[in-house]
Amino acid sequence: MTSTPLPSWQDGPARNAILDFLRRISSPDSPDFVPPAERIATFDNDGTLWLEKPHITELVFIHDLFRHDEIQPLLHTAGLRQRIEHWWDSFYDEVIEDCHLLLKEFRQGISTRDYHQWVSDWLQKARHPRFDKAYTDLTYTPMREVLALFQAHEFRTYLVSGGSCYFIRPWCEKAYGIPPEQVIGSTLLTRLNEKAHGLEVEMTPIPTYFDNGPGKVLAIESQIARQPIAAFGNSSGDIPMLRWAGMAPVSLCMLVHHTDEAREYRYSPGEDTLQAASAHQWQVIDMQNDWLRIFD
Amino acid sequence: MTSTPLPSWQDGPARNAILDFLRRISSPDSPDFVPPAERIATFDNDGTLWLEKPHITELVFIHDLFRHDEIQPLLHTAGLRQRIEHWWDSFYDEVIEDCHLLLKEFRQGISTRDYHQWVSDWLQKARHPRFDKAYTDLTYTPMREVLALFQAHEFRTYLVSGGSCYFIRPWCEKAYGIPPEQVIGSTLLTRLNEKAHGLEVEMTPIPTYFDNGPGKVLAIESQIARQPIAAFGNSSGDIPMLRWAGMAPVSLCMLVHHTDEAREYRYSPGEDTLQAASAHQWQVIDMQNDWLRIFD
Repeated sequence: MTSTPLPSWQDGPARNAILDFLRRISSPDSPDFVPPAERIATFDNDGTLWLEKPHITELVFIHDLFRHDEIQPLLHTAGLRQRIEHWWDSFYDEVIEDCHLLLKEFRQGISTRDYHQWVSDWLQKARHPRFDKAYTDLTYTPMREVLALFQAHEFRTYLVSGGSCYFIRPWCEKAYGIPPEQVIGSTLLTRLNEKAHGLEVEMTPIPTYFDNGPGKVLAIESQIARQPIAAFGNSSGDIPMLRWAGMAPVSLCMLVHHTDEAREYRYSPGEDTLQAASAHQWQVIDMQNDWLRIFD
Repeated sequence: MTSTPLPSWQDGPARNAILDFLRRISSPDSPDFVPPAERIATFDNDGTLWLEKPHITELVFIHDLFRHDEIQPLLHTAGLRQRIEHWWDSFYDEVIEDCHLLLKEFRQGISTRDYHQWVSDWLQKARHPRFDKAYTDLTYTPMREVLALFQAHEFRTYLVSGGSCYFIRPWCEKAYGIPPEQVIGSTLLTRLNEKAHGLEVEMTPIPTYFDNGPGKVLAIESQIARQPIAAFGNSSGDIPMLRWAGMAPVSLCMLVHHTDEAREYRYSPGEDTLQAASAHQWQVIDMQNDWLRIFD
């Protein structure tokens, strides 16, 4: 007896689209067969694999870190603390701008190793304000089933996030089965330092790459150098990535639509994203109807 | 009956170092056991996996491409052609400088897809001036045996080259069993263009990353985000990468030393590299004595 695939998915068009696609590309006698080496699937993270409301988790992390007593001596911008307190009331663009400012203050002189540890420590303690759970327990169960099913079909599953890779890599392998080398994210310029114990990679406050919008395609081309045949996203920042995957001869492009205010949140991906989904015939995942449960 | 591992290697310290290392990290009852997920090995390309004399192959490619009639209309710098003709007589630094100039002229407006095709086409036709063979037939047989043996021991083998990833990716999977996503190299800024047939990634003449020296460690940290436990190089540009791998609790760091003017070339990796090898106890591969044969 084999277990039913995708048990958290309602039997319907979204689930069928996934199962049909996997059957078509993996059956050796299928005209659409794709060799395992070319099976690349890319996944946005915030809002696609885990929740992004009321705030993007990485911003909550940076916010908390700045208020931490140990961090205070590392800061030197007057008024920075007030700006942080003001964060949650401000518009998204302003938050992003502040975030750049924070990065500039904060990541100066921090080794990638230390940052990794801070992220891990924070995730142990932090709780989501509404669900009162660890953020890593707020990944979407149905999407973890998709990841596992793709991996079982010999896909290399890549996480392609506007967030920084430094924030995602410490926990993504355990949460998603995605190893750190398959995480593509926004990056900062780093430098190599000679320390007493040997070499150390240090983050500088200079952003090198914003992995969003067209940047997602460029990062995929630069780091994977193969066209994905499947892509999952939930916002306008994912449109180019979904279009890029959709150019493959056989492809699956899916958009997570947040329609469930009772169990998660209800918000629109934006008119441009819905229009693109319609124009390119992407499969929309209606969270309320397509997912039998959302979290474990 | 099992076949002898590394058949092109002389029974001696270099071969033994490789076999001992693989036994130590892969035997489940070994105190030095490393889980497969953490088995990362990085390899320099030019002079480590294939020959780099009398000229680095990518420079020969660019040189030939510039003389190609079809390419001429794409060029617009007066005197560029003469500079190219002058190349082979000039010093290495000057060649690199010219190479940057060429990149600037040439890669403007070229799609990564077209460039891939040009590289593939060139490799079909080009012959090495001394050995009269295709360049892809001048990879080192003993090193391909090492790659295959590492891969059989569940290593992810990464190519980390000062050359551009655009030049290496079209042929590395066939030559080395290294898929394009495991090639890290120097990069140019790219942009996403809207064309009649859909999206296209275009190379711009702005270098974003020179993957050499400390840059090799930073690229490894940025793209693999795990410390390699084995590294192979042949020049001063590989010193930081070899040191980085050498900081792992159990590691294998090897330096290919070109000592065989009869079968390949004889040249020094430089005094700093030999000193680093001695100081850090890297295993030096003496091409003349350690390799029973060099090419297939």
